Amino acid sequence: MTIPTASGPRRRATLSDIAQRLGVSKAAVSFALNDRPGVSAELRERVLAVAAELHYRPNSAALALGGSRVDVIGLVLNRPARTLGTEAFFPELMAGIQAGLSATHTGLQTLVVPSLAEELDAYRVWQSTHRVDGVILVDPRRDDERVALVEELGLPAVQIGSHPSRQPGVPSVWIDDHAVATRLFAEMFALGHRCVAHVMGPLDFEHTELRRRALRDCAQRYDAPSPVSAETDYSAEQSAAATRELLARAERPTAIVYDNDVMALAGLRVLQEEGVAVPGDVSIASFDDSVAMRLVRPSITALTRDTYALGELAARTLMELVGGDDAVESVPALPPTLSVRESTAVAP
Amino acid sequence: MTIPTASGPRRRATLSDIAQRLGVSKAAVSFALNDRPGVSAELRERVLAVAAELHYRPNSAALALGGSRVDVIGLVLNRPARTLGTEAFFPELMAGIQAGLSATHTGLQTLVVPSLAEELDAYRVWQSTHRVDGVILVDPRRDDERVALVEELGLPAVQIGSHPSRQPGVPSVWIDDHAVATRLFAEMFALGHRCVAHVMGPLDFEHTELRRRALRDCAQRYDAPSPVSAETDYSAEQSAAATRELLARAERPTAIVYDNDVMALAGLRVLQEEGVAVPGDVSIASFDDSVAMRLVRPSITALTRDTYALGELAARTLMELVGGDDAVESVPALPPTLSVRESTAVAP
Repeated sequence: MTIPTASGPRRRATLSDIAQRLGVSKAAVSFALNDRPGVSAELRERVLAVAAELHYRPNSAALALGGSRVDVIGLVLNRPARTLGTEAFFPELMAGIQAGLSATHTGLQTLVVPSLAEELDAYRVWQSTHRVDGVILVDPRRDDERVALVEELGLPAVQIGSHPSRQPGVPSVWIDDHAVATRLFAEMFALGHRCVAHVMGPLDFEHTELRRRALRDCAQRYDAPSPVSAETDYSAEQSAAATRELLARAERPTAIVYDNDVMALAGLRVLQEEGVAVPGDVSIASFDDSVAMRLVRPSITALTRDTYALGELAARTLMELVGGDDAVESVPALPPTLSVRESTAVAP
Repeated sequence: MTIPTASGPRRRATLSDIAQRLGVSKAAVSFALNDRPGVSAELRERVLAVAAELHYRPNSAALALGGSRVDVIGLVLNRPARTLGTEAFFPELMAGIQAGLSATHTGLQTLVVPSLAEELDAYRVWQSTHRVDGVILVDPRRDDERVALVEELGLPAVQIGSHPSRQPGVPSVWIDDHAVATRLFAEMFALGHRCVAHVMGPLDFEHTELRRRALRDCAQRYDAPSPVSAETDYSAEQSAAATRELLARAERPTAIVYDNDVMALAGLRVLQEEGVAVPGDVSIASFDDSVAMRLVRPSITALTRDTYALGELAARTLMELVGGDDAVESVPALPPTLSVRESTAVAP
C-alpha cells in the first residue's frame, strides 16, 4: 500500500506517516522500530501494528547505517587538483557544510578526483568500508550516474542542484537556475542591449544548459536576434579566445555575460586590450561573484551567491537523512541576488 | 644516553640510529621492536640489545597509534568561515595534501574554526576519540601553543612553517620566508625605488615578522630610508585604507608590496581612483599570486608559490611519521618564484 498525497505521485509510507497516525514524534517511532530503549512496550506494539498496516519498509540507506554512525560525511570534488584554488565556490561551500554539521559533531572528509569514474569509485569505497555516513553531490549532470549509484549502494546522499530531485531517495537542495539566469539576462535586455552573448562553461553540466535556454527565452521575449552562447572549459584562456571571436563578429554583441568570475576577468582584459570601453561600448557581467569582481576597475556586475548558506542547508538536509528520517524532501535554497556594478550600462 | 651530532644540540636515539648501527633497514628495526613477524629471532635480539644500549625510547606518538590506524589525517583552518573563499591557498593546499595521501589510501578531514582556542580543542577531541592519525598545522605563530599541545597529546603532526622545526617530534615543511621576502623587496630596490612600503597581514603570524625584517634589512643594504610596514587584517578594506594613508605621506612611497593578492587588488584600485599611474608613479607587487594577478590591468608582479607541491610534501612527511618512523626530519619546500608583470618598473 502507498499513501496517496494531495498532488503528485503516490509515494511509499514513511516514518512520518506512522508518527502522524499515532500522534507521536518521529524519534519515538524510530526508537520503537529499532527496538531501542526509551519507548514503552505498549507504544512499540502500536507502532509495529501501524507499520505493518501501511506496509512500511524502512529506507534502505537508513537501515544499512544501523547504529554504527562514523560521524563523518564525504564530499568529492571532481576537478583538476591544481585548478581548485581558482574557484571560490568550494572553500565557501565546505565552510558552510561544516557549519551545518557542527550541531551533530560530524566531520567533513573531502576527496579531489580528476574524473567522474574516480568519483564513482570513491562512493563505492566509502560505502563498502563504511568511512562516511553520507555524501553531498555537487555539479549535477544530465543523466547523472552518481545518483543511481548512491541509491544502489544505499549511501545517504543529498544533491546540490537546479530543481527538486526526481529520485525521492536522494533529495536535492536546489536553486532554480533558469529563473536566476533570466534575472541576469533580463537586466541586460532591460538596459536596451539587443545582442547579448553568453560565454558558458561545459554543456554537460545541467545548469549550463538551463542558462543557455534562459538567454534564448529572454531574447525571444524582448524580440531580439538569436543570441550566441560560446562553450568553454571555464578557463581564462578559452574565455579570452571566445571574447576575441565575439568582437570579430559582424553582429558584435554589446553585452557579454560570463559563466564565472575568472572568465569575466579574462574577458575584461581582452576588451581593454582591444580598446573597447566597458561599459561604454560593451557591458559585461558574471554568474559568479568574488572579491576581484568588486575590486577590479570597472567593478563587474555579478550574481552574488550565499554559497556558505547553501552548504549549511545541504549538510543539515543530509544529517536528517543520515538520522534515519526517510521522508526528507528536496528543499529550495536562497537564490542569488544581483549586484549591479560599474561594468553594466545602457546599450550604446 | 643521547647521540651527539656533528652540529646542533644532542638528540634522542632514533630508530635510524639502531638501523645504522646494525646495518639493516629501519623497517626491519621497527618490525623487531614491535614484535611483528618478518624478522629472525637472532636479529630481533640484536635490535633489542642495541636499543637498550642507546636508551632508545619509541616516539610516543608512533607508539600511541599501535596498529589502529584510521587512515584519515586532519587539517584545521582557523579562519572566519565566510572569508575562506577569498584565499586560493587553502583549496590548493588541500588538493596537494590529498595527492600526498593517495599512495597510502588515507583521507583528509577538514575543520573550519573561528579561533585558536577551538583549533586546540579540535586536536584534543580528534586525539581522544582517535578520529585522525595525524594533523598538519598551518599558519605558524610565535610561541605556538599548538605545537606544545600536539606533542603533549602524542598526536603526530607536521607544521608548515618558515624554518626547520625547533621541536624534534613535530617536524616542519618549511620555506625560508626571510629569503623569499628579500628576493621580492630587493627587486624593488634594484629598480631604483628608495621608498618601499609594505602592507602586511597580522604580526602574530611568524612569516609576517620575517617579511617586515627582510624589508628593513634590504633598505639598510641599499642605504635607503627606514621603510614603512602597515599592519592589517588581510582584508581589502584595511589594505585600501593603508594605501590611502601611504599616498598622503610627505615621503610618499614609489613602490608598495602587499602581503596577499586581495590586498594588492584593493591597493591598485585606490591608486587608480587617485589618478596615480601604475607602474609610472608607483610600482606594486604581491606576496601571493592568483589568476586575478595575471588578468587585471596592469597585471601584478607576484611571488608564485607551488602550494599544491607544499601540501603534497607535508602529507608525505606526516605519513612517514604516522608510519612509525621516529626520525622524520624537517624538510625544505620549493621556494616561490618571482613572476614579474606589468605593475613594476624603474622608479620615476
